[in-house]
Amino acid sequence: MADDRLRARVTVMLKEGVLDPQGEAIRHALGVLGFRGVEAVRQGKVIELDLAPGNARADAEAEVARMCEALLANTVIERWQVEFV
Amino acid sequence: MADDRLRARVTVMLKEGVLDPQGEAIRHALGVLGFRGVEAVRQGKVIELDLAPGNARADAEAEVARMCEALLANTVIERWQVEFV
Repeated sequence: MADDRLRARVTVMLKEGVLDPQGEAIRHALGVLGFRGVEAVRQGKVIELDLAPGNARADAEAEVARMCEALLANTVIERWQVEFV
Repeated sequence: MADDRLRARVTVMLKEGVLDPQGEAIRHALGVLGFRGVEAVRQGKVIELDLAPGNARADAEAEVARMCEALLANTVIERWQVEFV
């Protein structure tokens, strides 16, 4: 973006080993629709955050990490990752 | 991955201009928790597809595009993009 606005993209996925019924439902539905060769499906969330201008990138990374731990992910069963886009 | 297995990551977001109550709820909750400086939040879905080995990359791209149009996204209100990871 033109100014110093930052957009963080947080991806939240279930941890390996946690049952993912939504993903399994999608896999099944794809098979019903005739799509072969899909071996596994996992569904997660993506959350795009537009941050106010004036944040240093390092500060923003730390702040978004705190948001993930506090609200955006359930860290018992989910893992999260952040990228700036 | 070691073999020729492909993993497609589909990201589905609401189109610009479509009301996103989930994103708005997250923005509000972040404010309540004391996180300032989040101007806008959009929530979407991410769907990871593990494709059977033996697919050519170009074929897989076309196949996943068909899956998006047929099932994974509601193209009236959502846009999708695919990356291979």
